[in-house]
Amino acid sequence: MKTLKIGICGVGNVGGAVLDTLNKNPEIIQSQGGVHLEVVLVGARKGKAAVENKQLNVVEDLKEVAASNEIDVLVELIGGCDLAKELVETAIKNGKHVVTANKALIASHGDELFKLAKEKNVQIGFEASVAGGTPVIKALREGLVANKVQWFAGILNGTTNFILSEMSDKNTNFDDALKQAQDLGLAEADPTMDIDGTDAAQKASILAALAFKVPFDFKSVSYGGIDQVDPEDLKYAAELGYAIKHIAYGSLVDEEVSVSAYPTLVSKELLLSQVGQQMNALDICCEDMGSTVYYGPGAGPKPTASAVIADLVDIANGGWPSQDSAKKVNKITKKTASFPRYLRLNVKNEPGAIAKISSIFANEDISIEALIQHEARKLPEDLQDTVPVVIISGSVSEEIISKLITNLESMKEIDTKVRQFRIHNAV
Amino acid sequence: MKTLKIGICGVGNVGGAVLDTLNKNPEIIQSQGGVHLEVVLVGARKGKAAVENKQLNVVEDLKEVAASNEIDVLVELIGGCDLAKELVETAIKNGKHVVTANKALIASHGDELFKLAKEKNVQIGFEASVAGGTPVIKALREGLVANKVQWFAGILNGTTNFILSEMSDKNTNFDDALKQAQDLGLAEADPTMDIDGTDAAQKASILAALAFKVPFDFKSVSYGGIDQVDPEDLKYAAELGYAIKHIAYGSLVDEEVSVSAYPTLVSKELLLSQVGQQMNALDICCEDMGSTVYYGPGAGPKPTASAVIADLVDIANGGWPSQDSAKKVNKITKKTASFPRYLRLNVKNEPGAIAKISSIFANEDISIEALIQHEARKLPEDLQDTVPVVIISGSVSEEIISKLITNLESMKEIDTKVRQFRIHNAV
Repeated sequence: MKTLKIGICGVGNVGGAVLDTLNKNPEIIQSQGGVHLEVVLVGARKGKAAVENKQLNVVEDLKEVAASNEIDVLVELIGGCDLAKELVETAIKNGKHVVTANKALIASHGDELFKLAKEKNVQIGFEASVAGGTPVIKALREGLVANKVQWFAGILNGTTNFILSEMSDKNTNFDDALKQAQDLGLAEADPTMDIDGTDAAQKASILAALAFKVPFDFKSVSYGGIDQVDPEDLKYAAELGYAIKHIAYGSLVDEEVSVSAYPTLVSKELLLSQVGQQMNALDICCEDMGSTVYYGPGAGPKPTASAVIADLVDIANGGWPSQDSAKKVNKITKKTASFPRYLRLNVKNEPGAIAKISSIFANEDISIEALIQHEARKLPEDLQDTVPVVIISGSVSEEIISKLITNLESMKEIDTKVRQFRIHNAV
Repeated sequence: MKTLKIGICGVGNVGGAVLDTLNKNPEIIQSQGGVHLEVVLVGARKGKAAVENKQLNVVEDLKEVAASNEIDVLVELIGGCDLAKELVETAIKNGKHVVTANKALIASHGDELFKLAKEKNVQIGFEASVAGGTPVIKALREGLVANKVQWFAGILNGTTNFILSEMSDKNTNFDDALKQAQDLGLAEADPTMDIDGTDAAQKASILAALAFKVPFDFKSVSYGGIDQVDPEDLKYAAELGYAIKHIAYGSLVDEEVSVSAYPTLVSKELLLSQVGQQMNALDICCEDMGSTVYYGPGAGPKPTASAVIADLVDIANGGWPSQDSAKKVNKITKKTASFPRYLRLNVKNEPGAIAKISSIFANEDISIEALIQHEARKLPEDLQDTVPVVIISGSVSEEIISKLITNLESMKEIDTKVRQFRIHNAV
């Protein structure tokens, strides 16, 4: 049986789970994968104290692992972009394969790294960088290889999905749901990168590169966070037949690719709307075939280890065609795709207000598909004279909806800002 | 770029779609897959009339394709077991790889064929044999390679899922739903293999071999069809928070593997319950990681072609470890797993009947988790004096539930047969 000699940099939660799984399931991996995975070198800044198995060869200098000639493949699990990039480049230049869980690294420096890997004829595995234990990168670059991807829509951040699910199911506000996520270890002490959409946007840029054969280009992804979502919006969405999810979306129209990640109303008819707790899911829609959906854990030590080990086995069995060779026929655009929209306005309780709103929509040639105006509820003091109005519009671009909102907000009958979310109901 | 020379046997709907996709998306396949797939020989019993592209080299004798030295790989798309097996064996003995969509062939003769393939050092791709365009075999043998699978539960037959969804959504009976499926081309003129569960059971035996490292052994799968499902059952199931789906289920307990496929109540909390129309879905639950779910089209020319082409690209890129080498540590048992159960009884409207039923359950040490007895509805003439009683039991084996049903049916207060379905609510 083949043996693949592995050097691991970083043995925190994920690195620990990789060692643990290799130790627990070697027969399963050998039986199905046809390879013996042998950890020959571990880089841990805390040294031997960081690992349970005292038989392991542990060094404190991570660069020693990256430069080692004892290994066939470097597993990079330290995260971040600076040192991680240096380690990965060192290993590749030294003719070693790389497996990484580092979404930031791939999203921002993927092209550079894959070019280098091609020159050195080595592989880079990055299944763990998106959707953890759910093999979505494998699906995109192997399972669906025969197909033209039209769009993808994914719940790619477990923390925010947990928070939105909690707010929706238990009728709590954002702060309480975030605290609950932190208590359960599902959100970090500083959850900024999750909450503001950065994490999902990085993953979206990786998926877009694979789906549409465009460069890895995190900078061209537009995104927003879930802190814009109010419990009131979740209630209206539910009333209209939608859940609110943070959706990373990429689409190809006329050789132009747009990638974005925003809180989005998802039709209850779609599986994505049913994805609760901290789970991830990705819907990939292909021409002539329609949707396939992949659901599962998107983070956590064991799921991430599952993806890392799958990459190692794949590399031992021949790996993948060079990602650098993928033809870059399509172009990334900063323009985002058109969507139906949800708008919530606080409208002064005066005659003619709705007529005026309707005419602003008509002027921009935007259809109103649904409108809810309930009788006045109990509102905060300063909104006592207003009623909330919720409108579902036809499909409209970011540019036009911004113009519409500016016009609405200039109406004297509308106070407070207009809230707007996309709607995903495509199949 | 590498070139893989392909011979195709069978150019009906699926073979036609393979040719069509190869012709339509060659850049996509070359860009991501790094291989040029060239069809050098086509076997069609109707000859040249069967193909659109008149440039193709078509022969009427399928055996000529299988024995050709011009090809690198034989794509077998004729179905059935006799001639298909002969063609596949001929190609393998001649040192050629094989890609097949033939579930019956793999389910019944997989071990024999993989042994031969190992001897000849060639590959057999069979992604298309289960769940068409949804890459579930890839997930099982590659994406989840690091994991111990505990169980899988899948909707693997699109025809029956369409019929059950139609019966449930539109409140129609089995015959009308079947006719609708036939009108839409979703059921064959003779749908026996779909309706009686054979098709799903064949697929389940393939998944079990991969998930649990046991032989391909269709004969050891116990199964039943959806013709047992009455509209009345769908209504009660919905009332109790379940959908009825045809579920192929495999599980590993103490090195014993049991595989089966029956109509099953699925908790509305689970994604599988939301899978409508003719779609397929598979939930694979792994130790330490939990469920990943794969959803998508399970049949049809384009999805099947997608899977066939993915296999061809994989073979060009090194293929998979020999399936024959997978250690057969676990054993298949004919015993099926324990499940909670749904039972529907027609009980004579007499005092003490429910008490008597309860005591029969108690005697077998089976818990009653829920019981519904509505006031008498309008019933067929001969059941006028009975009321329907629906019981949800605790988890119980096939053996015990059979004994319980025999005891219930021997009660003079119960006429007509007791209906029983499994319940799947595991996560």
